[in-house]
Amino acid sequence: MIYLDNAATTKPNEESVRAAEKFILSEYYNPSALYAEGYNLHLEIKKARSNLLSLIADDEKYSLIFTSGGTEADNQAIFCGGKRGNVVTTYGEHAAVFAAMSELKLRGTEVRFADLNADGSVNVEKLLSLVDGNTSLVSVIHVNNETGAINDVNSIAAQVKIKNGRTLFHSDGVQAFGKLPFKLSSFVDLYSVSAHKIGGIKGCGALIKRKQTVIKPYIYGGGQEAGLRSGTENVFAIKCFEHAAINKYRNLKSDYEKVCRLNKILISKLDNSLFKVLSSDKASPYIISVIADGLRGETVMHELNDRGLIIGTGSACSSNSKKRYSRVLLACGVKENMADGALRISFSAENTAHEIEEAAGIMNTVVKNRKDIMA
Amino acid sequence: MIYLDNAATTKPNEESVRAAEKFILSEYYNPSALYAEGYNLHLEIKKARSNLLSLIADDEKYSLIFTSGGTEADNQAIFCGGKRGNVVTTYGEHAAVFAAMSELKLRGTEVRFADLNADGSVNVEKLLSLVDGNTSLVSVIHVNNETGAINDVNSIAAQVKIKNGRTLFHSDGVQAFGKLPFKLSSFVDLYSVSAHKIGGIKGCGALIKRKQTVIKPYIYGGGQEAGLRSGTENVFAIKCFEHAAINKYRNLKSDYEKVCRLNKILISKLDNSLFKVLSSDKASPYIISVIADGLRGETVMHELNDRGLIIGTGSACSSNSKKRYSRVLLACGVKENMADGALRISFSAENTAHEIEEAAGIMNTVVKNRKDIMA
Repeated sequence: MIYLDNAATTKPNEESVRAAEKFILSEYYNPSALYAEGYNLHLEIKKARSNLLSLIADDEKYSLIFTSGGTEADNQAIFCGGKRGNVVTTYGEHAAVFAAMSELKLRGTEVRFADLNADGSVNVEKLLSLVDGNTSLVSVIHVNNETGAINDVNSIAAQVKIKNGRTLFHSDGVQAFGKLPFKLSSFVDLYSVSAHKIGGIKGCGALIKRKQTVIKPYIYGGGQEAGLRSGTENVFAIKCFEHAAINKYRNLKSDYEKVCRLNKILISKLDNSLFKVLSSDKASPYIISVIADGLRGETVMHELNDRGLIIGTGSACSSNSKKRYSRVLLACGVKENMADGALRISFSAENTAHEIEEAAGIMNTVVKNRKDIMA
Repeated sequence: MIYLDNAATTKPNEESVRAAEKFILSEYYNPSALYAEGYNLHLEIKKARSNLLSLIADDEKYSLIFTSGGTEADNQAIFCGGKRGNVVTTYGEHAAVFAAMSELKLRGTEVRFADLNADGSVNVEKLLSLVDGNTSLVSVIHVNNETGAINDVNSIAAQVKIKNGRTLFHSDGVQAFGKLPFKLSSFVDLYSVSAHKIGGIKGCGALIKRKQTVIKPYIYGGGQEAGLRSGTENVFAIKCFEHAAINKYRNLKSDYEKVCRLNKILISKLDNSLFKVLSSDKASPYIISVIADGLRGETVMHELNDRGLIIGTGSACSSNSKKRYSRVLLACGVKENMADGALRISFSAENTAHEIEEAAGIMNTVVKNRKDIMA
């Protein structure tokens, strides 16, 4: 089976799982307990926090709150950050931000959505025009999970702060962290990351926070995570996240270059009479969105699956939705009949060039057969 | 090392971890993905949901929402259930409920706290007197995590519904699930449980919900858990929880009887000139709260730790708090100078009678030595 749905989840890095597994059965204590065995785990979490933070931010200026995943981190940022006035976001957000924003709107907060460019990135001029003196929060996704479009969040955050210095700036960095060379500038207040998208295990993520930025907890209780996220710490998943992230950053440049090559191979091998590539060449190389025009993406996906290739149709999260068409692709200007045929191929650096060539061959065959039958 | 802090967390059940570990590295797909490998995991989660539910409730009448733990489940119940009018709870709640209630109060909801009896159970008459036509939510802990006091939540819920049929009834069942013989009556709307307190791993819990009870999600996003809890499902932890819970319920009666014996051994072996037992004989046998009068519990705990015995001081969660005295013990009428010497011993059915005898011996020696030094 060739696995090209790495934006949905990745196979955990075996070395990282092995390094962390002692925290399941052996060092199983409660990290909030004050005896030595508990306190040692508190120190292990502290080390994980500092190691993870240093990969992407100046740890003098930033802190990190472990959460149950990217979705919870996004919810904390939005519900705790967007309390007053209006909130500005984009039509290109992941469901974790988009659905939270929709709920915020239902509760009476004015939520302003900025349009996307054709490649799926936000129209920055439009976004900035929505920011005013009453904007409490701006949230812009770093790498879109369907198109791979990159928003230059450091630059956007700086421009937002010029318009309103009191506005909090949040970015969902789930598809960027561990993949793109990037460090947080001090204009980004809050940044969400996820473990299982980069070789960690499911059930763990973090909200990275500028130390000076004050937000409330979203989950209240025993006061873990310096009071900002209660609940017994998920030590195994946290340590696995730490190891997986260190591993990703160790190879970030070479992985990035390798994935660029895999991306180019796929695009060059796909029959361009059968597939229209939506992702721009400025997008993250880890994600390619294509359209098999005239076909249903879901049908194609199942046939590919039968032939040993796993790819996605839009985001995995959107499969829980009743909506047939990708909200994000429609916002990029893709017509409904086209959006129906959308497929997402997402790479990991563990994929091989041979797998990608084979994948392109399977995709060409399946779509050609389908079209021949329909003709 | 003798581990008697099982109310803080338990050593995961090795058999359950082994049964679930294939969901880490082998079946690592996203359960929301529509291809066969993803859908199979969706079915695995469905099976876990149904198996877990059938252990404690009529699965025709109840459903189950997987969360990141008991704390999140409590937060969802309280923030989503306590929207209108007033909310009634007790002074004997775990921090996950107590802190969420305090936040609700800050946001302007009237929160009414019912007094405790001397044994730590709620004064039911007092609680019922606080419920009126405007009460939207009542939350009563099932087994208190410090004293082991049991509240008969099925009966309390029935009485609450007589006073106001529209009031939602929630109970934090974290210290009861998998320990006490108990099935939810149809008067309990919401019930929180946690995996790591019964041999599962940290980072997983559930909110059990009467099907007819309508609540909103607390974490918004991709619409997982029938729209009631978004975020990629933590498959490994969920499957581990399922196996651990089935294992606990298979042996529930014999474990309960064994723990009753362990409990009696400890109480009979502790020198009653040194320790005052706070827990009543009606409490859960899994938890004993004692006071080493005139000493600081934390100091004693560290000395016990040095001699190979792990017990707690109040709840692990409260160690993040700056407060010196246990809020719950003070609410039971314990004086501050006494509360300072509180120690919590909590059992698992894996403990042996020999361990308990040894533990009592260590406790007697340490406290006697301390008192001799002070005399």
